[in-house]
Order: sequence, then structure tokens, then C-alpha cells
Amino acid sequence: MINKHSPVPIYYQIEQSIKNLIDKGDLKPGDMIPSEREYAENYQISRMTVRQAINNLVNDGYLIRQKGKGTFVASQKIEQKLLGLTSFTEDMKARGHVPSTLLLDFKKIDATNELAVNLNVQMGDALYEIKRIRLADGFPMALETNYMPVQLVHHLTEEVAKGSIYQFVEQRLGLEIDYATQELESSVARETESELLNIAKGAPVLHIKRRTFLKNGCPLEFVHSIYRGDRYKFVIDMHRS
Amino acid sequence: MINKHSPVPIYYQIEQSIKNLIDKGDLKPGDMIPSEREYAENYQISRMTVRQAINNLVNDGYLIRQKGKGTFVASQKIEQKLLGLTSFTEDMKARGHVPSTLLLDFKKIDATNELAVNLNVQMGDALYEIKRIRLADGFPMALETNYMPVQLVHHLTEEVAKGSIYQFVEQRLGLEIDYATQELESSVARETESELLNIAKGAPVLHIKRRTFLKNGCPLEFVHSIYRGDRYKFVIDMHRS
Repeated sequence: MINKHSPVPIYYQIEQSIKNLIDKGDLKPGDMIPSEREYAENYQISRMTVRQAINNLVNDGYLIRQKGKGTFVASQKIEQKLLGLTSFTEDMKARGHVPSTLLLDFKKIDATNELAVNLNVQMGDALYEIKRIRLADGFPMALETNYMPVQLVHHLTEEVAKGSIYQFVEQRLGLEIDYATQELESSVARETESELLNIAKGAPVLHIKRRTFLKNGCPLEFVHSIYRGDRYKFVIDMHRS
Repeated sequence: MINKHSPVPIYYQIEQSIKNLIDKGDLKPGDMIPSEREYAENYQISRMTVRQAINNLVNDGYLIRQKGKGTFVASQKIEQKLLGLTSFTEDMKARGHVPSTLLLDFKKIDATNELAVNLNVQMGDALYEIKRIRLADGFPMALETNYMPVQLVHHLTEEVAKGSIYQFVEQRLGLEIDYATQELESSVARETESELLNIAKGAPVLHIKRRTFLKNGCPLEFVHSIYRGDRYKFVIDMHRS
């Protein structure tokens, strides 16, 4: 029900009404919703207003637009529990998704000042720079840029970088991963990011910086990740001390 | 240094170069950066390209635009450690900021289905609905909508809602807060949100849903918060099990 005399903007009322139908299960993943024209005629409002509501719901991951087909209810976001330190591969498997990796770039670079500080090496020391798209069930979820000291993770190959690096580090190199410090920020997709993640420019993304440490105190990696905001949410339990 | 023959887009090169100057401390909070025209002339590129880079840095909280004055380096984002369950008031004080609250709305409503499920009450039960802008040093940081069962938090007043509700719950009502489950998602500011938080429509925001529980297992509150993406980042430590 839309109330044109309410101080609540009409696009927002439409958004809430569609969200409620999804939350209550009246609209299920895969269901097609009415067209913008139908909404506009039904509520006697402009198509622009309907489009604004639907754009917001697409950006937030509630709906998916398919060209020439229509707009559909999306499947639920992937929830990542922020309790234990898990790799993308482990995390997706635990949730019943099939993880895969698209290796975009694999090379050695000289540590810049910022990277040297974060990895506790000297400026100019050799680092691996690995750019990957991480996918779940074939859909791009995140864009990752990984920096690791060559001295520490020797024998890293392109083949390894196509799978779980943690597995290689722990099982092949015998290094013990201890903990990570992670920073989460909200951002919007830049042009290149939007192309690689198959989302609109300006769509919401989660920007995550992670520093991972070994049991001996050495920083193992410094990772920048960009997660699709429409497919991912992070969940954490906090205790009152 | 801008490289026009690089596959890296020029706006992105400018972004990184300004970010590096900030990270290295060559540009400090409060410093004015050159104008778009100066950048464009200096690098022989279009002002549109410069504007894109600067817009991105404003959205991400690195720069602040002041009308008629120029563009300045912003102060650092407020880091919120996601380890202990703290109130906004406690958190800001611990960081040396002065917290304040603008009460937008305070009323009793009937629990909808969604709210009843989240607060473990019956549909139609009385709830407090409290809308507040939370400020740090006088600047709006977050927009909070808080739902609490009236039965549980009786005697809650507008006066209390202007300060720390946790303090009231613990010290006046003698209830023991135990833990909270928090969901973090990336989103973009809607029109009303952007006006209340004083940011551009479409600017990045962090959307947080929190359910807080008492020691006896009862849900105390269900909170929707919208944090400014340019002023806030969340930090968490994770251990490998």
C-alpha cells in the first residue's frame, strides 16, 4: 500500500513493501516481480520513482535485473562469520558453495613503502603480487590483491595461486598461521572493479584490508579485497565485558 | 607521476598518488590540495578525469570538499574495534571524541511480524521506536533506529534516549547485557539518509543490524544503523583455530 500523503518518500515505501514481501516469503528467490510500467500504473506514480526503488533493491542485493527478461528476487546473501580466520576456499565449502578462482595477475614486485611497513620487510624487498577474482558457484564475489614476501613463501606458483594459498602455506611449507587483523569499510565500485565483478559502477562494495600473521610473529600477507555488497554480508558476535 | 600509456585508468592513478601522499604524511589532515584545474593543467588531462578521482576520494573519506574554499585532506576515519560490545557513547568517549545525540523520533508502536520475531515478543506487542542521529564532536556519524519491548524497558523516557540507553538499562533497571549479534553490509545513502547524515546521495554507508541479548536470554533491542562510510571503519582480530 502506497500512501501519497505520508512524509515517507514514495520510492522508499515501494522499497519497503517489496522487501517485506521477500522477508515474509511471499516473494521467493527466482520469482519475477511486476515490471516498472505495471507498478507505475498500479500505484499511479511515475516510472522514475519505481525505477529508483528497484535500483536501490538491485544495489542492495534483494533483486536481480536480467536484460530482456525482467527483474527477479535474488537468492540470499552469503553470510561470512567473522569469528575464525578462514580462507575464501574453506569458507565457501563450509557453506555448500563451490569456490573457484580466476587468476588475473601473478608477479614479483619491489616492496613500496606502504607494503614494506605492513609486511615488516625492507623497502625494495621482493614480494609476490597476486590479483584474483574469487567466485562462488561460478559467480564473481570478490576481487583480491594479495602481497606476500618471496623470502617467506618461496616456491609459490601460479598453479597454487589458482587455489587456496593458506592450504599451501600450512601443508606444504609447514608454516603456522596464527591470526589476522581485518579492517572493513564501505565503498562504491570503481569502473574497473565493476567490470570485473559484473556490477554497476557506483554499486556498494565492502573494502577489506587484512594483515595475517604467523605464530612466530612474522606478517605472512597483506590483502586488499573488494567484496560485492549485493552478495555478501558479515556477521559477528560481540560480548559485553 | 601519471603514465598515459599504462592500462591502469588515469583517474585511478591520480587517486593512488593522492592516497600515497596522505599515507606517507606528505599531505596532512587540514591541508588543501591543488584545484581540479591545476591538476588538469599539470598532467595535461581533462578536468572530468580529475573530478572522478577526487569524487572517489571524497566518497571514501580521504578528502573533504568545502564550498567556495577548496578540497582538504580529511582527518582519519574513526576505527571501531568489533571485539567488545560497547555503546556509541562509550565508544566515542574511549576514543577521545565528544558524543552527542539528536533525537528525531520517540514513540510506541505495535510490533510488526519482523520485529516480533527479532525481539521474541508477540505481533502487536508494544515496542519503543527510537530514531536518533549519533554525533561525534558535533558531526553526524550514524543514523540509528532502535526497537525495544516496552514490557522490558519500562520507564524509558525521551530524556534517556538522548544519552546512553545501555547505561540506563544496566544502572537504573539493573538488567545484565550479555552479547549481541551484528550484521554488516555495504550500501549507498538514500535521499533522506544523505540529508540527515550530510553526505551525498549515493555515497557509501555501512548498514548494521544488531540484536542485543540479556544474560537471561531475552532480546533487549533490535537496532538498524547507518554509518557514514567516509568517517567510519570497523576493525576486527580473527584467530586461526
